[in-house]
Amino acid sequence: MGRWRQAPRPLGLLLAAILVGIVGRCDGGISSAYVRKAEKTIDMPLDSDVFRVPPGYNAPQQVHITQGDLDGTAMIISWVTEDEPGSSEVLYGTDENNLDLSAEGIYTRYKFYNYTSGYIHHCTISNLKHDTKYYYAIGIGDAIRKFWFISPPEVGPDVPYTFGLIGDLGQSYDSNITLAHYESNPNAQAVLFLGDLSYADKYPYHDNVRWDTWGRFVERNAAYQPWIWTAGNHEIDYAPELGETIQFKPYTHRYWTPFESSGSTEPYWYSIKMASAHIIVVASYSAYGRYSPQFKWLEAELPKVNRSLTPWLIVLMHAPWYNSYNYHYMEGESMRVMYESWFLKYKVDVVFAGHVHAYERSYRVSNIAYNIVNGKCDPVPDESAPVYITVGDGGNLEGLATNMTQPQPSYSAFRESSFGHAIFEIKNRTHAYYTWHRNDDGNAVAADSMWFYNRYWQTAETTSAV
Amino acid sequence: MGRWRQAPRPLGLLLAAILVGIVGRCDGGISSAYVRKAEKTIDMPLDSDVFRVPPGYNAPQQVHITQGDLDGTAMIISWVTEDEPGSSEVLYGTDENNLDLSAEGIYTRYKFYNYTSGYIHHCTISNLKHDTKYYYAIGIGDAIRKFWFISPPEVGPDVPYTFGLIGDLGQSYDSNITLAHYESNPNAQAVLFLGDLSYADKYPYHDNVRWDTWGRFVERNAAYQPWIWTAGNHEIDYAPELGETIQFKPYTHRYWTPFESSGSTEPYWYSIKMASAHIIVVASYSAYGRYSPQFKWLEAELPKVNRSLTPWLIVLMHAPWYNSYNYHYMEGESMRVMYESWFLKYKVDVVFAGHVHAYERSYRVSNIAYNIVNGKCDPVPDESAPVYITVGDGGNLEGLATNMTQPQPSYSAFRESSFGHAIFEIKNRTHAYYTWHRNDDGNAVAADSMWFYNRYWQTAETTSAV
Repeated sequence: MGRWRQAPRPLGLLLAAILVGIVGRCDGGISSAYVRKAEKTIDMPLDSDVFRVPPGYNAPQQVHITQGDLDGTAMIISWVTEDEPGSSEVLYGTDENNLDLSAEGIYTRYKFYNYTSGYIHHCTISNLKHDTKYYYAIGIGDAIRKFWFISPPEVGPDVPYTFGLIGDLGQSYDSNITLAHYESNPNAQAVLFLGDLSYADKYPYHDNVRWDTWGRFVERNAAYQPWIWTAGNHEIDYAPELGETIQFKPYTHRYWTPFESSGSTEPYWYSIKMASAHIIVVASYSAYGRYSPQFKWLEAELPKVNRSLTPWLIVLMHAPWYNSYNYHYMEGESMRVMYESWFLKYKVDVVFAGHVHAYERSYRVSNIAYNIVNGKCDPVPDESAPVYITVGDGGNLEGLATNMTQPQPSYSAFRESSFGHAIFEIKNRTHAYYTWHRNDDGNAVAADSMWFYNRYWQTAETTSAV
Repeated sequence: MGRWRQAPRPLGLLLAAILVGIVGRCDGGISSAYVRKAEKTIDMPLDSDVFRVPPGYNAPQQVHITQGDLDGTAMIISWVTEDEPGSSEVLYGTDENNLDLSAEGIYTRYKFYNYTSGYIHHCTISNLKHDTKYYYAIGIGDAIRKFWFISPPEVGPDVPYTFGLIGDLGQSYDSNITLAHYESNPNAQAVLFLGDLSYADKYPYHDNVRWDTWGRFVERNAAYQPWIWTAGNHEIDYAPELGETIQFKPYTHRYWTPFESSGSTEPYWYSIKMASAHIIVVASYSAYGRYSPQFKWLEAELPKVNRSLTPWLIVLMHAPWYNSYNYHYMEGESMRVMYESWFLKYKVDVVFAGHVHAYERSYRVSNIAYNIVNGKCDPVPDESAPVYITVGDGGNLEGLATNMTQPQPSYSAFRESSFGHAIFEIKNRTHAYYTWHRNDDGNAVAADSMWFYNRYWQTAETTSAV
């Protein structure tokens, strides 16, 4: 199966790894014996500097952007004002000193139990030129704030693009390290976020103040790069005991997705195109059974993917289908049995998930032969299958999943219980380079890596780990 | 495995069966070779007498009742007025000539594409005495209409009660025969309806007039007996091409369920107690994944079932988990892998489903040993498991599912492609007699039958078919 090249590591960390046992190989896959220092994961206190409210009366805060249409000529700019509604207008342009364009947004707010949100603004700016640095300003008076982003390049088959993968981030000290570690990568252009944002629901009464702090925490990156959102279980915020029975209420008020431009009718499943990638977001916590709107949408969406235009077909979801930790084991089965054959038929390149607070990469495997009576229910090597990657190790307060099923199942290529993030770097229509970066290493270190050969354009190539 | 006693049949039909092949046994189960005459299933035309609008200005129509609380001391009375709202009041009492009680309901209406509904009234009458004949009157002026029902008996472990099982009814000539056949049973007290009511969504623009005709069609029974509703795929009415993206809009406006009294927060999953039965309705077309509201509700509901009070634990769903027809084959897998172990743990007696337009009964089997890596994915005999029964053969315009998987799988005890209904007749805490009645036979004929031995009170008994 795969070949494993040990990544360079700082000497001290390497020694620590040696002390607990050398990186081991089980059933062809790797269960990394690297163990980070066993500190408890703790949320940053409310008065942490990363949560600081920007100065000025009614200053826009929690600024974040996401792609606003199918192909990257629009961006949704979102922010919150706390004192009064203020303005929902965005001034923008390509000259930092002359923001000659403007767009008017809307604002909304919501109540959740004993909490009332600020004024949550969303403004879509459209007709953007591709691959262009735009500056934008929001707010009024002495509290105007300026940011910038680079619009995605025009969609095309050989357009390189670099995605960051972050999941289950939360707002602990470790979350902060994960984000800083990701920020230190000078090439990353957008974040594919794999669900579970703030973990506000872990606080008494789902304290939505922690939605606000999280928004301020990630602003330093999310205001400058589009973050593509996937809904996780901690976004459900279903609390009948508090009288809160509308699912995803804080999430849908705060984090918009461009679902309508891909024909979706709910914000939890949708697609976008970025550079040479067609990215499909599916919803682990919406109905996905046959005849459900998500089912019908995905059934219609997959045949629309044009691999000549967007060779890379990437799927994001929260609950992984192939996971060999004892945490959330088999939780993805229910969706897997419904959709896996489609992923094979349409040759999805890679599926990124979160949920399990650890890292894992599968071999290309499938498990679609089962018909109830034939006993064929083993995952088998399959070159038409995606690689399944779990990057649920953003660093939230729930801590790491350290308990792995033993022995390592044959579908699992590499697994390690460390906080970190991943990078998927598309080179052209045939090649992409993938790396996983544990927080304990320096920026340049890849603790796991793999060359991806596109499933549509280069199916004959091997997909072994390098 | 099971023993099969051939039911008596009219001579002509028996001869027909002999001509196409004697009832056969495959893998221990029975694939009935009985073949009904192969007429096409056709909906009754709009001017059919069964769809007649009752006389009088603004006369209440589409009258139906369902249990209105957890234990049967309330009933929801529903009806439609077409000309104007009229009154939402129900007059009722135990003396036909002196309706001395009254309750005020509400009315609602909805638009669906180019259709606007009439005024849909719902009125819950409460504090009913158990097992008592109540008369009720609705409407005003010369269009007052009177009906009656017998309230469910007080909940208790040995209280006998007889349920009818009808699924996928529709409004064809065959639907009419199914309903008439059910009505001819003098003992049946309530209908457990397994989803797919009107099939209005099969008409151009989901012609909601067919929701009205269906309501008038079933009134002759549904106004007199509580019908317990399960949502099927034909209730979704999701039609983004018509701008209709709110799921279940006609269904939820027209057919209420008492979901709140069992702690549910949506009308699609809930429970009620009737006599000695605890009935749980689950939703094939809502989210059922881990962390979903339905998952959380069912997880909390099952431990609440008190088998000393309600020995019989019955589950209703639309899409079956154990089905061996080539129609909708394996569609129930996604929900099965999520919930089946609970049904074993809590010893569900029987699961009734619809969806597949045919009849099938399983042996007591389970399939919960699979852990991805052990290859154990065969259904196996299991005395703690429910019997799974598909009664999707109400007679709707889509016609019969006649194509069976071959050979008959070991989990399938009996299957036959005929229209019909079933009866579940609880005798006491240990015994219930179950029969399935194909439309082509007379009322007294059971084409399939089985004594049920309660899973909680008499687990040692065999559960073979008789």
